[in-house]
Amino acid sequence: MKIALAQINYHIGNFESNTSKIIDGIRRGESEGADIVVFSEMAISGYPPRDFLEFSDFVNQCQTVLQHIAKHCKKVAAIVGLPTYNDREKGKPLYNSAAFLFDGKIQSITNKTLLPNYDIFDEYRYFEPNNEFKVIDFKGKKIALTICEDLWNVQDNPLYTVNPMEELIGQYPDFMINIAASPFNYHQTKIRKEVLKKNARQYNLPLFYVNHVGAQTELLFDGGSLVLNSFGETIDELNYFEEDFRIYELDEVIDNKQSIYNEINRIEIADIHDALVMGIRNYFQKLGFTKAILGLSGGIDSALTAVLAAEALGSKNVYNVLLPSKYSSDHSISDSIKLAHNLNMPYDIIKIEDAVNTFEQTLQPFFKGLPPDIAEENIQARSRGLILMALSNKFGYILLNTSNKSEAAVGYGTLYGDMNGGLSVIGDVYKTQAYELSRYINRDKEIIPENIITKPPSAELRPDQKDSDSLPDYDILDEILYQYIEKRKGPKEIVDMGFDKPLVDRVLKLVNTNEYKRYQTPPMLRISTKAFGMGRRMPIVAKYLG
Amino acid sequence: MKIALAQINYHIGNFESNTSKIIDGIRRGESEGADIVVFSEMAISGYPPRDFLEFSDFVNQCQTVLQHIAKHCKKVAAIVGLPTYNDREKGKPLYNSAAFLFDGKIQSITNKTLLPNYDIFDEYRYFEPNNEFKVIDFKGKKIALTICEDLWNVQDNPLYTVNPMEELIGQYPDFMINIAASPFNYHQTKIRKEVLKKNARQYNLPLFYVNHVGAQTELLFDGGSLVLNSFGETIDELNYFEEDFRIYELDEVIDNKQSIYNEINRIEIADIHDALVMGIRNYFQKLGFTKAILGLSGGIDSALTAVLAAEALGSKNVYNVLLPSKYSSDHSISDSIKLAHNLNMPYDIIKIEDAVNTFEQTLQPFFKGLPPDIAEENIQARSRGLILMALSNKFGYILLNTSNKSEAAVGYGTLYGDMNGGLSVIGDVYKTQAYELSRYINRDKEIIPENIITKPPSAELRPDQKDSDSLPDYDILDEILYQYIEKRKGPKEIVDMGFDKPLVDRVLKLVNTNEYKRYQTPPMLRISTKAFGMGRRMPIVAKYLG
Repeated sequence: MKIALAQINYHIGNFESNTSKIIDGIRRGESEGADIVVFSEMAISGYPPRDFLEFSDFVNQCQTVLQHIAKHCKKVAAIVGLPTYNDREKGKPLYNSAAFLFDGKIQSITNKTLLPNYDIFDEYRYFEPNNEFKVIDFKGKKIALTICEDLWNVQDNPLYTVNPMEELIGQYPDFMINIAASPFNYHQTKIRKEVLKKNARQYNLPLFYVNHVGAQTELLFDGGSLVLNSFGETIDELNYFEEDFRIYELDEVIDNKQSIYNEINRIEIADIHDALVMGIRNYFQKLGFTKAILGLSGGIDSALTAVLAAEALGSKNVYNVLLPSKYSSDHSISDSIKLAHNLNMPYDIIKIEDAVNTFEQTLQPFFKGLPPDIAEENIQARSRGLILMALSNKFGYILLNTSNKSEAAVGYGTLYGDMNGGLSVIGDVYKTQAYELSRYINRDKEIIPENIITKPPSAELRPDQKDSDSLPDYDILDEILYQYIEKRKGPKEIVDMGFDKPLVDRVLKLVNTNEYKRYQTPPMLRISTKAFGMGRRMPIVAKYLG
Repeated sequence: MKIALAQINYHIGNFESNTSKIIDGIRRGESEGADIVVFSEMAISGYPPRDFLEFSDFVNQCQTVLQHIAKHCKKVAAIVGLPTYNDREKGKPLYNSAAFLFDGKIQSITNKTLLPNYDIFDEYRYFEPNNEFKVIDFKGKKIALTICEDLWNVQDNPLYTVNPMEELIGQYPDFMINIAASPFNYHQTKIRKEVLKKNARQYNLPLFYVNHVGAQTELLFDGGSLVLNSFGETIDELNYFEEDFRIYELDEVIDNKQSIYNEINRIEIADIHDALVMGIRNYFQKLGFTKAILGLSGGIDSALTAVLAAEALGSKNVYNVLLPSKYSSDHSISDSIKLAHNLNMPYDIIKIEDAVNTFEQTLQPFFKGLPPDIAEENIQARSRGLILMALSNKFGYILLNTSNKSEAAVGYGTLYGDMNGGLSVIGDVYKTQAYELSRYINRDKEIIPENIITKPPSAELRPDQKDSDSLPDYDILDEILYQYIEKRKGPKEIVDMGFDKPLVDRVLKLVNTNEYKRYQTPPMLRISTKAFGMGRRMPIVAKYLG
């Protein structure tokens, strides 16, 4: 028996495109002699469909598509993920399901048991957990079919009180198939492999694992679908960050006759880079846009964003606007121009001084002689934001936000100014990681001018301003932020790690009191285990550490 | 036995304030002869604490506070809601609990069984469901203690497969206590009462129900705690939209010796009004602000927002800024001034023409001779937004957003312009409801000038512009939006109700393609069953009806 893995980039709610990709996969499998073609979790709807699942029109369309796809499975079988109805009297209205298609019909539906409901996951919002377990009999083999999280209850302190494979193993399956929508973070690739290998070894069964690939707004699915033998050794690994399709001879995998795949050690910073480039590219493609605009300040964040956008969209599609004020240093202009030249990106210089002066004159009678402060600094940032949005509106560009995670964390940015954008490219990248990424980009030759990387960071909103005037050094700041945001450590625990108590208190207070700003930021491409946005849900009006 | 209900406005994470309010309630109960004082769900932490629950520092503080409160319960017992640890090996790390305190100690912990995980609720994100059921024995009476949703599994098609009261009723309780954090919407007050009465009748038991009151950012808790006899008749109802404290003689309620309370028919539009005023007031109080700023356009939305803010904060604390452009009509100014005078609110007139001209001159070489379009219109809206934010920054005002739900739904607003603000006051109020609210406000005398209510709505961003140029009449638009947003009807179902198909398709497409704008809007005070924000989670990059 031959098993094909179809690793596909779906588009949420785009039934036409998803269906056509699935049918193409079935045809290809058939023509290449596959017996089963396996697609990923929620392939028909795309993942995560979120509250579209509350629309019966949406769920009905998924059922119609499934019937249509089943007709294409005459000789070859397929496993396809979708939402289905729970037709019992009690419980939530839907299941997260895998349909087994063959002989032109739906042969069986397998439902997901373990419903992740943490971080970015909301599956218990929609789905009833499965509590019936049955292997699939096909051509003399028994398949233990599970869906994503179903294999993840293997830690010492398990999150769930049931374990689907423990239920299925008593039915003597010959191998496991797991269909998934497991998003990337820079720890996930390694952890995911460990979890899958642990399952193969624990149940002494080969495992065919098919993951989503591609970006769904902020969520970046890295692919990396996997075939393991019953020793948990890797037989093959599909491409990362792109679609892929491969076929395997089941008996050779079961009999451990397949050679072991020499796993390539993945480089964390390269993965982050590739994930971000895919994130920008898919965001534009799926929205039907081709061109980006951004403000190049002369600093590292906007430079990095421009380079990533140029890789994703092509240099000529990234329009860089330099927006100097009277506080901008000469190197901000010259470094930015050098960067634009290095990648042959279009750019313009638009001075904001007239706009800023006009606002200051207009507001002068109402400011009542108070000394210049953050209000005037923000007028500069907001004048820049206004100009970028005007060009975006005039020409149909999407504005890329260039804020990094360290800034977003402590609120070091102007709402409706430099916090503008349709997509935040590096909003989940700490400043120290931004440096690392820039060094990675420059690994072969200087793309980001060296001076951008080495000069002290500055917002240039007042004379001789430096980030270090109001923030601690980024390597200290980022470590405190990481402990608080990613690790959810409290102030005492962080101080006990050796950080200064007043500093820790100040940083944590900044994070919590700036929740209101982050509430209004664009979606941020997620590369960490805890990104701002849908995966981190905080009260705005609250007092804890605030 | 005497039972006191303490209906309190908590502040999330403000342990000092919450603790002191709880201890005050215990002292008051003791001094007035109560045997038990009942506080609401998650009283110690405030509700919803959201991802603060992932910080063990936060959860530990809740336990410390509980121990401290228990010491105050020497002679009088108390029931207090808080998160507690699940100390079993398996399952989620926390329970949503009610602690029973007496004799200076924690006597028992009762955990919540049914965990709402729909709309604005995320309880399964944090909590393990309870599966042990035990009544509380106290002074010869047996108490069936449940937490909020535990009493809500009474519909024909139940969402949950268990029902806590079915488990407890076999232990022959004498009465029920339910502690809740049940947020307001304009259908909820009625539905909540029906559900509670159904429980009292079904189990033939009196019910003491204690709800949260007060606003937690966008969530508005209306209070309305309730005492029912075993026939499901109302013995008493605590105040709505404010704190309250009352004591009842248990035996009289059990023996049906209490007279029946003559329920006041609640008026929907009055409730919406009171909810919004409370929402503004609590947002400012809990953040430590006193003054609001907003742009008065001469239209009904900003007029209504100003009036609600004046009620919440006091007229002198609402600073109205009129920001006319060359397209503003004379009545926009005169009507706004009239409104400001009617309520004696401070106002200023700041012309945006210079700012707009400067931007147009600055951008002229880069706009490449293209004709004026949405880009120029947005420059006006964004210049206004910038001026309002500059004044907000300079003087420490919070900017109130004045967009209504109809506009937010179809994307009829400028991101970083009129969509700015710390809080959206009427973002969950449809335009037709905004008219109804304005009429309600003017019920005794003209506060909002009649011309503001009767003139055709216009954004005044180009000559003679009217909303009706690009949108259908609001009574038709709002009905389509209501069916799609609140009722989750699909296009076919809405067309079948008698609406024009091209119009329905256009409206639904506008709603879905403007998800990216709503992602960046301020929190909107929630008055409906389906508000934009945390309770409505939609993909941005998607194709469904888009």
